[in-house]
Amino acid sequence: MIQPVRWSDGVLELLDQTLLPNREVWLSLVRWEDVADAIRRLAVRGAPAIGIAAAYALVLALGDVRDHQEADQRLSEASRGLSQARPTAVNLFWAIGRMNEVWNAHAGQALPDAQAALLAEAARIHDEDVEGNLRIGAHGAELLPAGCSLLTICNTGGLATGGYGTALGVVRSAWERGKLEVTYLCETRPLLQGARLNAWELLKDRIPYRLLVDGAAGALLRAGKVHAVLVGADRIAANGDTANKIGSYTLACLASRHGVPFYVVAPLSTVDKDTPSGDRIPIEERDAHEVLAPLGCPAAPEGTDAWNPAFDVTPAELITAIITEWGVLRPPYETSIAEALA
Amino acid sequence: MIQPVRWSDGVLELLDQTLLPNREVWLSLVRWEDVADAIRRLAVRGAPAIGIAAAYALVLALGDVRDHQEADQRLSEASRGLSQARPTAVNLFWAIGRMNEVWNAHAGQALPDAQAALLAEAARIHDEDVEGNLRIGAHGAELLPAGCSLLTICNTGGLATGGYGTALGVVRSAWERGKLEVTYLCETRPLLQGARLNAWELLKDRIPYRLLVDGAAGALLRAGKVHAVLVGADRIAANGDTANKIGSYTLACLASRHGVPFYVVAPLSTVDKDTPSGDRIPIEERDAHEVLAPLGCPAAPEGTDAWNPAFDVTPAELITAIITEWGVLRPPYETSIAEALA
Repeated sequence: MIQPVRWSDGVLELLDQTLLPNREVWLSLVRWEDVADAIRRLAVRGAPAIGIAAAYALVLALGDVRDHQEADQRLSEASRGLSQARPTAVNLFWAIGRMNEVWNAHAGQALPDAQAALLAEAARIHDEDVEGNLRIGAHGAELLPAGCSLLTICNTGGLATGGYGTALGVVRSAWERGKLEVTYLCETRPLLQGARLNAWELLKDRIPYRLLVDGAAGALLRAGKVHAVLVGADRIAANGDTANKIGSYTLACLASRHGVPFYVVAPLSTVDKDTPSGDRIPIEERDAHEVLAPLGCPAAPEGTDAWNPAFDVTPAELITAIITEWGVLRPPYETSIAEALA
Repeated sequence: MIQPVRWSDGVLELLDQTLLPNREVWLSLVRWEDVADAIRRLAVRGAPAIGIAAAYALVLALGDVRDHQEADQRLSEASRGLSQARPTAVNLFWAIGRMNEVWNAHAGQALPDAQAALLAEAARIHDEDVEGNLRIGAHGAELLPAGCSLLTICNTGGLATGGYGTALGVVRSAWERGKLEVTYLCETRPLLQGARLNAWELLKDRIPYRLLVDGAAGALLRAGKVHAVLVGADRIAANGDTANKIGSYTLACLASRHGVPFYVVAPLSTVDKDTPSGDRIPIEERDAHEVLAPLGCPAAPEGTDAWNPAFDVTPAELITAIITEWGVLRPPYETSIAEALA
């Protein structure tokens, strides 16, 4: 199973996703600041994966502390620093929150015991994610017709999670159950996660796929070639509005127009019950250079400015269902989400 | 005025658009076969520009013929060869047809006179296109509100035409009349004509613009930042269905959902009255490599296949109006198009 994050004897190892598919380089990190940097520069990306990486980063942060007081201070500093690495994916804040709760619950224990509990929690967050994805895959595959063709955007596979994947996990699961004919991959500009990462994963697993430019999605849907659109999520508001990779909202509009189901696929850790609706989700705007120079090769003339939001928000009314490890959530999402969280 | 095609003393000069914006290289061509090749590899592109280039190519084809019989044979051979260069843009066939008519009308004249008439016709096709574009710009600007922000895809400027442009001509015209705030440019994968060519033209003319990835169009429209979407056309069927750069149909769906007008901007030479509807327009599929390797830099792993249609078809019902040199055509297009052609 493709897993982009692993813990090995006090070292956090991350598969550097900026170098895929050409080179498979593992980073060995021992400082939380370097993990924050890896999150910022997308060496590790995907909402669940950055949550897991941040959890382990907090373990690293406490690696050499001498007492509880120093540990508290360091944990608070690292939690703040990691929270600022990226603003949209809520799994980051969720994982940091869980780790802090566990730490506080062990305040009275010996330092090594508390540290061990913290590491155990990070591993639990990781393991739960993988198990959750397998359940998500099963729930998702049930919704799909036999012989189906799917369309997806960005990478939501093993690389974006603890392993197996969310939307790409459903693709895997549909394939394992003999239901999948082909998966169409939006290349996902500006950073081409579809072309670089999804293709890399599916090629490894010998699952049939075909790449297209993001603008071709309309023509593909109009040609009746797609039975369902599957996307991941970086944050799901309490009403079901969903922030995900830029281009997801465009796919949702197209799916709606062509009567094709549009599924958001994500673990419940992606739900932010404190954000009532999508217009309250902070959207990261990244450097214009990502647009101006695909893969670092300059396309536009010097002096050009670009608008580069990393995410967009799909309103709940365009989402056919939200596929979680808990089950398939249907509208009205206020109710079904609250029920799943309870 | 930016003009990508010029005739100079028996030589056809083309600005090689594959090298823009980094290098401005002019090709000097004296064989029709080299013009066909330039059309195929997109050194000259844009429906009106390839029509003009093909017209001059037919003049080149007859450059060294000794008699009418040889000329007839050469014209027929070159017409066939140029017609096969690209399948979708109808202006190519339209220009070749016009040139053949003029040739046939001069069948009884001395060879040099007939050749001179042929060159005059090519120049007329070129001049008419520029004049038409200026009229198109005026008609288009009238439709737009003051202080407007526009969204466009691909390059439809001077580079795609005899000069001034169609959809980008309307942008120019709106700017000249003080009505334009900013133009958003879809980068237009796979070949990035928006980033490479539109940006190059607007930078030269100091018209404000901002680039975005194609997938961000939905978020832009949802944010209410666009007052009209303008696209060019490679072929307009008799019922108004329009083939244009891949991604145009996606924009039309988005414009419709957000209540924003979607204008097709093209000269009447783009109308194909013999094609009743869009499903009869042949759509060129180009090499997967264009998708797999943006600007030639490999993105996807080896062994990946891509679906790469160069165009898509927007059905007439999504088109608010077709802006031509003759005036603004409104639905039902069967009637308004027939009227404009008559």
